[in-house]
Amino acid sequence: MTQAATVQVPTGMLKDPSRKYRAFPQIDIADRQWPSRTITKPPRWLSTDMRDGNQSLIDPMDSVKKNRFFDLLVKVGLKEIEVGFPAAGATEFDFIQNLVRSGRIPDDVMVQVLTQSREDLIRTSFDSLEGAKQAIVHVYNAVSPAWRDIVFKMSKDEVRGIAEAGAKVIRDEAGKRPGTDWHFEYSPETFSTAELDFSIECCEAVMQILQPTPERPIILNLPATVECATPNIYADQIEYFCRNLPNRESAIVSLHTHNDRGTGVAAAELGIMAGADRVEGCLFGNGERTGNCCLVTVALNMYTQGVDPGLDFSDIDEVIETVEYCNQIPVHQRHPYGGELVFTAFSGSHQDAIKKGFEAHEKQNDEQWRVPYLPIDPADLGRNYEAVIRVNSQSGKGGFAWVLEQDKGLKLPKRMQAHFSKAVQRMADETGRELNAEDIWTTFRHEYHLSRPQHFQLVDYEEQRAKDGTRVFSGTISEGGKERTVSGRGNGLISSVVATLSDAFGMTLEVLDYSEHALAKGSDARAAAYVECMTEAGDIVWGVGISADVATASVRAILSAANATRPE
Amino acid sequence: MTQAATVQVPTGMLKDPSRKYRAFPQIDIADRQWPSRTITKPPRWLSTDMRDGNQSLIDPMDSVKKNRFFDLLVKVGLKEIEVGFPAAGATEFDFIQNLVRSGRIPDDVMVQVLTQSREDLIRTSFDSLEGAKQAIVHVYNAVSPAWRDIVFKMSKDEVRGIAEAGAKVIRDEAGKRPGTDWHFEYSPETFSTAELDFSIECCEAVMQILQPTPERPIILNLPATVECATPNIYADQIEYFCRNLPNRESAIVSLHTHNDRGTGVAAAELGIMAGADRVEGCLFGNGERTGNCCLVTVALNMYTQGVDPGLDFSDIDEVIETVEYCNQIPVHQRHPYGGELVFTAFSGSHQDAIKKGFEAHEKQNDEQWRVPYLPIDPADLGRNYEAVIRVNSQSGKGGFAWVLEQDKGLKLPKRMQAHFSKAVQRMADETGRELNAEDIWTTFRHEYHLSRPQHFQLVDYEEQRAKDGTRVFSGTISEGGKERTVSGRGNGLISSVVATLSDAFGMTLEVLDYSEHALAKGSDARAAAYVECMTEAGDIVWGVGISADVATASVRAILSAANATRPE
Repeated sequence: MTQAATVQVPTGMLKDPSRKYRAFPQIDIADRQWPSRTITKPPRWLSTDMRDGNQSLIDPMDSVKKNRFFDLLVKVGLKEIEVGFPAAGATEFDFIQNLVRSGRIPDDVMVQVLTQSREDLIRTSFDSLEGAKQAIVHVYNAVSPAWRDIVFKMSKDEVRGIAEAGAKVIRDEAGKRPGTDWHFEYSPETFSTAELDFSIECCEAVMQILQPTPERPIILNLPATVECATPNIYADQIEYFCRNLPNRESAIVSLHTHNDRGTGVAAAELGIMAGADRVEGCLFGNGERTGNCCLVTVALNMYTQGVDPGLDFSDIDEVIETVEYCNQIPVHQRHPYGGELVFTAFSGSHQDAIKKGFEAHEKQNDEQWRVPYLPIDPADLGRNYEAVIRVNSQSGKGGFAWVLEQDKGLKLPKRMQAHFSKAVQRMADETGRELNAEDIWTTFRHEYHLSRPQHFQLVDYEEQRAKDGTRVFSGTISEGGKERTVSGRGNGLISSVVATLSDAFGMTLEVLDYSEHALAKGSDARAAAYVECMTEAGDIVWGVGISADVATASVRAILSAANATRPE
Repeated sequence: MTQAATVQVPTGMLKDPSRKYRAFPQIDIADRQWPSRTITKPPRWLSTDMRDGNQSLIDPMDSVKKNRFFDLLVKVGLKEIEVGFPAAGATEFDFIQNLVRSGRIPDDVMVQVLTQSREDLIRTSFDSLEGAKQAIVHVYNAVSPAWRDIVFKMSKDEVRGIAEAGAKVIRDEAGKRPGTDWHFEYSPETFSTAELDFSIECCEAVMQILQPTPERPIILNLPATVECATPNIYADQIEYFCRNLPNRESAIVSLHTHNDRGTGVAAAELGIMAGADRVEGCLFGNGERTGNCCLVTVALNMYTQGVDPGLDFSDIDEVIETVEYCNQIPVHQRHPYGGELVFTAFSGSHQDAIKKGFEAHEKQNDEQWRVPYLPIDPADLGRNYEAVIRVNSQSGKGGFAWVLEQDKGLKLPKRMQAHFSKAVQRMADETGRELNAEDIWTTFRHEYHLSRPQHFQLVDYEEQRAKDGTRVFSGTISEGGKERTVSGRGNGLISSVVATLSDAFGMTLEVLDYSEHALAKGSDARAAAYVECMTEAGDIVWGVGISADVATASVRAILSAANATRPE
């Protein structure tokens, strides 16, 4: 008897999903231009943190948080800030009216408010801005088939009529309130899932009423209310819109992407390439569901391409602190530019490359940033290099070498790095956790016998030049805690110490390599010396000496190597 | 005297960043085809959670966590799983060898191990797979100018030589170990920042040695080791590579994107359109720095386009739980598909549209998913609708109406929703926090006088049909705690109760609208009745009655409206 159920089929997902979901249709734009374009200047930015962001918080911001967020946005350099939905309730209205009257809106900043296209709501929205020097009134209505059929049960003409009616109210209300410099924004909401020609038709109808000019353009904001396709499709839609909108030069085409498919930043970037002038989003991508496109990421992406975004994230930790406080949502550890792990490399080969990159950067004659694995200089965001590298059992020699150099000034010779890496690996394997700088220093001191007491230990010494040019080392060395007066002769200090070890203690060491460097600049310079030696048995041992005196560092390095010849 | 310092210039970012960063160059591919293509079938998937993901954790997984992660990946349906970097240390090696010997690798799953292109490391890697039925050995070396110049200080020929030398070791080691079905992967690491023709040259050199065929292809993996440009550039690179690689049909072109610019998912998607066959990534985008591309997102993006990804995320909460436990990194609240807020709508208009979408979905004759604001049916991921909507001070009527319907079965008439929304708004404004279902129910009972004791309260009643066809209500109603026996006559039950109120208590109510519905299906059905009434003073009041008996529900609704006429 055969069993039919031998093939394991995952449940749920393999039940022919095509029955339930449909592929998003292609855009009819054969000669698209955007894939050949690059981003060469920043768009106008609008932050909707206080509207789209705030409305999607579990606990919306109170006025203290809203004011703090507003001040942050001004400091970052935002010139257009959507501050709320005044017709949504008394809390919203009062905050906006208080903000306008507070005098904390700089002259070059425009606040924006959102309203549905309904006469009473539009009036309330204008009321909330009473006293503003300049402001943007942002009206929207959803235009896509799903919304027309399911939510409104309205025809295209009726939906376009909603937009037109709203535009007339806006025009008339603005006319009655000459104290403010009014700007207008219209969003055919659900643009990304609507028929392009119908979106254009609605925008055109609104433009007919508001009569924008190139000098006084209208903002036409094109939301990917829900991200429903790959980002190239959104770019196609934007390019189609820009190419087919009558009176294009009287409109600022604005992008408002969401992140349902994880490509909200990409959609905004490709949308800019496709001809848009403006980007709406939130800091670190807050907003409904999966959030809006992240303004920090889009801006810093431009920055690292040599385009000044006109936004200032040079103290990104302050930005994160405020955003996390106001939103009560953490910035993820891996969020581009802002996450706490994004300037951290754990793997040895990454660490090694970064270390070499920093060295090359110091030596090179231009400012050009090209450090491997770091697309941006952490210092540009107010972060420092020390945070760059941690060491764990996945790491190779680059990581600890960096830590020792940054932390202690030690520049280990390359072969010694390979030697020490085994000790680090052992410790990482044993502890099963990340090693910090202190762990590495402890391991280093243990491995190279820098902690007292050791078997061989220098008490004091002096060195004399003999008449034949050789040098004589004479000093006191304790062996197993017992001090002995010893001496030896050689061609130099190191060989005289090696001779002493041989003469006095019967220990044969051959010095294969030696190096020394100062530990710090300035008058209180200390020195580190490294020796690679071969024992009589042919084993390689390493010695390290550190001292305020370069000669003493050398002597200690030899004794460190001598201690290494003894079993643990 | 004028002041020069009136224009505020943000510090840091405006110091001409173009001096420090350079724009990524365009790819020379005028006739690119990918922007016109769509994704119509899933790629081969490789999870590198246990390698690229694990190596970038603060605390790498121990073997318990690794085994749990491996089992999850198998359950999700991954057929290619990179399990580690065996030459990195004893911990890695032992885990891999134990995994291979444990028998927990299903026959249709291939494990993959990564190694640098060095003879000793490659041998160790083969050793770690001793006993495997089939496996992929993945060799890489970095090929881009920054790595050649800064990290290795090597010429192009030398770098290509590293790849060739590794390929020869692989070929020879595989030949010596016939017990395993060996597959090979070569990564020209840092592909995205390398000269395309040089990457092709290295891949071709490796292919010359390994002699892949269409039946036994080599995997050529093209890493965006660091994401350095907009995702269309990566797609251009992939298309260029696919079109110019000799013997293309003997290679599986694989993508490995990172997320430094927040567009790792987009790059993978556009890369598939550009001709790639395979995608490497991690669940929820773990990996070095900003992480790898998120396999969950790329897969479910296909799913919602009607393409079966071949991966099973029908219990996404279980996936999240395991990933968070193993990585000790939370999945962000707004992460596509998985985040806890992505099926949550706070704004009233969103909630209203979703409610209508669910209603339409129930009525429609096909399975087609088109609920506004929800790109995927939460049920497909093992989530439920109840979690969809929360109510706060930003919400309108849709939200609480949904909650009342889901939670209590109440379907409020549209005008009553508008009435009740004011009460909800008040409570949200007062509490300044999100309202839960219990808050809304409390508000509802208070607003419509459903809690005892009330001024007017029904004790008992009976109804009789008079000979003239009218109806007579006679019952006991307590008024301010004092029971009275009362009666009234009308054309029906409701009008007889209204007549009773008028005759016995001198209260005039005109019923403007009435509706009633069953609360649940089945034998113990209860009913809810809603009345909209006008008082003598012309005020509108609403009444609600709930009872096991439909008639009693109506009577209670009238008394509820009567109670509403009295000041609070």
